[in-house]
Amino acid sequence: MSDTSTAVLLLSCRDRKGLVAATSDFIYQNNGNIVHADQHVDSEQGVFLQRIEWETAGFRIPREELAGAFGPIAEKLGMQWELRLSDYVPRIAIFVSRLEHCLYDLLLRHRAGEFQAEIPLVISNHPDLQSVVEGFGPQYRHFPITKDTRAAQEAQQIALLQEQRIDLIILARYMQILGDELVHRFRNRMINIHHSFLPAFPGARPYHQAYERGVKIIGATSHYVTAELDQGPIIEQDVVRVSHRDSVEDLIRKGKDLEKVVLARAVSLHLRNRVLVYGNKTVVFD
Amino acid sequence: MSDTSTAVLLLSCRDRKGLVAATSDFIYQNNGNIVHADQHVDSEQGVFLQRIEWETAGFRIPREELAGAFGPIAEKLGMQWELRLSDYVPRIAIFVSRLEHCLYDLLLRHRAGEFQAEIPLVISNHPDLQSVVEGFGPQYRHFPITKDTRAAQEAQQIALLQEQRIDLIILARYMQILGDELVHRFRNRMINIHHSFLPAFPGARPYHQAYERGVKIIGATSHYVTAELDQGPIIEQDVVRVSHRDSVEDLIRKGKDLEKVVLARAVSLHLRNRVLVYGNKTVVFD
Amino acid sequence: MSDTSTAVLLLSCRDRKGLVAATSDFIYQNNGNIVHADQHVDSEQGVFLQRIEWETAGFRIPREELAGAFGPIAEKLGMQWELRLSDYVPRIAIFVSRLEHCLYDLLLRHRAGEFQAEIPLVISNHPDLQSVVEGFGPQYRHFPITKDTRAAQEAQQIALLQEQRIDLIILARYMQILGDELVHRFRNRMINIHHSFLPAFPGARPYHQAYERGVKIIGATSHYVTAELDQGPIIEQDVVRVSHRDSVEDLIRKGKDLEKVVLARAVSLHLRNRVLVYGNKTVVFD
Amino acid sequence: MSDTSTAVLLLSCRDRKGLVAATSDFIYQNNGNIVHADQHVDSEQGVFLQRIEWETAGFRIPREELAGAFGPIAEKLGMQWELRLSDYVPRIAIFVSRLEHCLYDLLLRHRAGEFQAEIPLVISNHPDLQSVVEGFGPQYRHFPITKDTRAAQEAQQIALLQEQRIDLIILARYMQILGDELVHRFRNRMINIHHSFLPAFPGARPYHQAYERGVKIIGATSHYVTAELDQGPIIEQDVVRVSHRDSVEDLIRKGKDLEKVVLARAVSLHLRNRVLVYGNKTVVFD
Repeated sequence: MSDTSTAVLLLSCRDRKGLVAATSDFIYQNNGNIVHADQHVDSEQGVFLQRIEWETAGFRIPREELAGAFGPIAEKLGMQWELRLSDYVPRIAIFVSRLEHCLYDLLLRHRAGEFQAEIPLVISNHPDLQSVVEGFGPQYRHFPITKDTRAAQEAQQIALLQEQRIDLIILARYMQILGDELVHRFRNRMINIHHSFLPAFPGARPYHQAYERGVKIIGATSHYVTAELDQGPIIEQDVVRVSHRDSVEDLIRKGKDLEKVVLARAVSLHLRNRVLVYGNKTVVFD
Repeated sequence: MSDTSTAVLLLSCRDRKGLVAATSDFIYQNNGNIVHADQHVDSEQGVFLQRIEWETAGFRIPREELAGAFGPIAEKLGMQWELRLSDYVPRIAIFVSRLEHCLYDLLLRHRAGEFQAEIPLVISNHPDLQSVVEGFGPQYRHFPITKDTRAAQEAQQIALLQEQRIDLIILARYMQILGDELVHRFRNRMINIHHSFLPAFPGARPYHQAYERGVKIIGATSHYVTAELDQGPIIEQDVVRVSHRDSVEDLIRKGKDLEKVVLARAVSLHLRNRVLVYGNKTVVFD
Repeated sequence: MSDTSTAVLLLSCRDRKGLVAATSDFIYQNNGNIVHADQHVDSEQGVFLQRIEWETAGFRIPREELAGAFGPIAEKLGMQWELRLSDYVPRIAIFVSRLEHCLYDLLLRHRAGEFQAEIPLVISNHPDLQSVVEGFGPQYRHFPITKDTRAAQEAQQIALLQEQRIDLIILARYMQILGDELVHRFRNRMINIHHSFLPAFPGARPYHQAYERGVKIIGATSHYVTAELDQGPIIEQDVVRVSHRDSVEDLIRKGKDLEKVVLARAVSLHLRNRVLVYGNKTVVFD
Repeated sequence: MSDTSTAVLLLSCRDRKGLVAATSDFIYQNNGNIVHADQHVDSEQGVFLQRIEWETAGFRIPREELAGAFGPIAEKLGMQWELRLSDYVPRIAIFVSRLEHCLYDLLLRHRAGEFQAEIPLVISNHPDLQSVVEGFGPQYRHFPITKDTRAAQEAQQIALLQEQRIDLIILARYMQILGDELVHRFRNRMINIHHSFLPAFPGARPYHQAYERGVKIIGATSHYVTAELDQGPIIEQDVVRVSHRDSVEDLIRKGKDLEKVVLARAVSLHLRNRVLVYGNKTVVFD
């Protein structure tokens, strides 16, 4: 971890000559020191994707003018782009139901300094975890959900998320389908953990499905949420070996350890501006 | 590897008291030395499954009378059972199309002594690999398959498999659907390698499917063949990490290494009488 | 997990005929239902090792007479053996310094019901984690250690461990060398987590050593503590891939996730009476 | 895989501003299309390392003048650098003793088109594998080695390697210590496979050492050869899980599968100019 702050550009455009030179020149000409640059060309689709990070200390363009200065270059080259400043501290809301393992894991990692972010808010459809959460600091807001109240509750959740200026939602085993409005507003900014090796066993009760099928390995998948359930761009996956000796309960227990690690890795990659969504896939510049 | 020959019982029945004692007593009372015994109780379904192996040297019951002697015990306890003698050398037929990597791998492992088996026969729907195979020893038989000739060719294949007294078929990336007759005759004796982490990506072109979906891990699955494509009992699976940098060709290349190892492990487990099929699952006594 | 209580025998002796039959007969003749039996023969050393577990419900020998009843059989066959009752609840003391990740992980798993055990006591050479620990329930005892006070403090720790009737010590990143007396008293009952893939990088600062050496994979090892540092019988190990991009801090961060899981697995195996120490190795009947 | 040829620069120097821009500008100003660029800064040592690859088609500097054109830039920036052309076909010599698995694996992969290289020569201290090798095409040269003949034989080997214009030596389980002269001449161009997870179990009989120690995971390591045995820069490692049930023979069998894959990956990385040696470590731009 560097103690100096940096700026990160995440960009994509049609592949053509001079793209690497164009961005590195922009930075060099303004006295920037590049600390990371990585790019990928999808040669099938002819798309160029890049992540480039440089130190803001000594950079000739003040940070508030950065976007304005790079915009014309990007426009000329037909780039889609995002600019992130490493010293911006994103604000996270965690959604949770009753299962505490992922929530606890995130809160502990946050307290241990693993995530450069604030977690001001936890939203749940159950009251159970209130005292646990508040012991760590975040506000706990309980939104009971029924078929009839779902839409109204979600409208209130959105208002709360706005009020709290939330940048990233983490679904830490939140057992509810979300409405289109919420999903749309947090496109590429809402991370879910699904307790299977997607695309195997989407939907409900994946450990039971895995047990029935007799697989020898189970997995967990962290992905951005899209309108289609368990179909969004995958950020990270991992697996663990199981055998006939493992009951469904054993799969659940082993799976919990996977879920925690896979979700934490995905969140960390996102927060360090390492993930670029592209079609329904991700490029992970790790 | 012991140099003494052994007998193996693979059995299953409704769980009840005294099952472990019944089989171990049978062996002990007849002066047998148990070298491996393992069992599993599926407590959901109340099924007991066991593998027990003992040295035939010094055993009071001659091998040709073994089945007759154990039969009444099994009947009394309602057991399904199979008796295998470790010095019986099973005869394998490998089915292959054009891809050579699994075939070669199996032939090399066989030559290196990894499989206690004979491989007298390789069957293919293409002539390409004839000289490779014959250099290793097995007979190579070419059965071109078209929609119209499929049934007739398969009848001839079955006749050949019988004539050659084949115990086990290995589908080493054989790109043809097999008829019910052949599948039925080799129930639990025909092992396929599928180039995905089943149940993800069944059917054709799984590496292309995996590439499209943007998964971060790919796999391979070895299973017994049943009437439903890629749905049979899984024997072994393994995975390897991939990234956005991997093209479809890279997935294929990495996948080949997986396929070879996963298929070889499954074949080895089968030949060492370690696999007991049970419902649509396997118990692997490893 | 069955809801009925069971008895477990863990035994070893010179290999000979009739050992499996002897123990299973003892159980069967007394109306026991065997729910797990597994054994291993080390054919190089001619040693037989077994784990056998049966339901105590309906067993003709009362639990308080079990040891007395099996003793003569064991003696006749020259067996070393231990008897464990599944409804006995072992008492654990966790030793910790300042790093909280393993401690927290163990306390959370305990609260989630993963360990059938009590954790009445946490001992530390630092005061830092007192409030964390007490929030979970255990007593926190601070024993500052200097070169001069070590022996006296350890004597007091031993007295406290006895008073608290501790069965198992877990060193959850306890950064102190322990005295022979303590190690001896808790032989095969003290589990350490070492933050490397032993025997690579024993001793201090293994992540720094790994970074210097440029390895592509790092690991963690859980083992029983013996008089020789990091040389005890290994219970469980696992690894994670790293690259040149990972700084020492990244190795430490990735390693923490490994340490937690590897230590928790080892503790769980021990508590479920799955581990049999044998020479300087373990047999893990999983 | 692109069908157009490319040039690759592998370079390292003290970190300073403008390095990324300097190389990408050089390429862009000469009408090159960058297809891969990756760099790494070792912030502890202040070293910048880069790999940059561009299409030679349309590049304004002819390939024979490339080195001359880049040289002054490199000199100005104090860079150590190597230039590789993707259509140059390196020539490989494989050294082997009696074990055939790695040799066979390399020859098969080569025939399957996995390596862009020629393998004109196999050198062995035993005659055993001559017919296998010659069936694949390479010349097989037998150099029996004794303590007395070692130096003289190695001098002849060096002459042969020169005559054959060998670029890369692969030690495919070659069970001989090599002399300093040979090691020195092929610095960073001689790849060994060691059958353990280094730095655990260096030297002789690592599988026996692993068995004695009772590890739960074994590994294989591919590294460049240096004067100190098993101490060179690590290119690739991988592991596989084992248990008390695995005899030394099982470890050897499982290890063989690892050795093949790990060695093949290391060779492939080297041939695709992905490996930059740096101190006693590698940066693998994959």
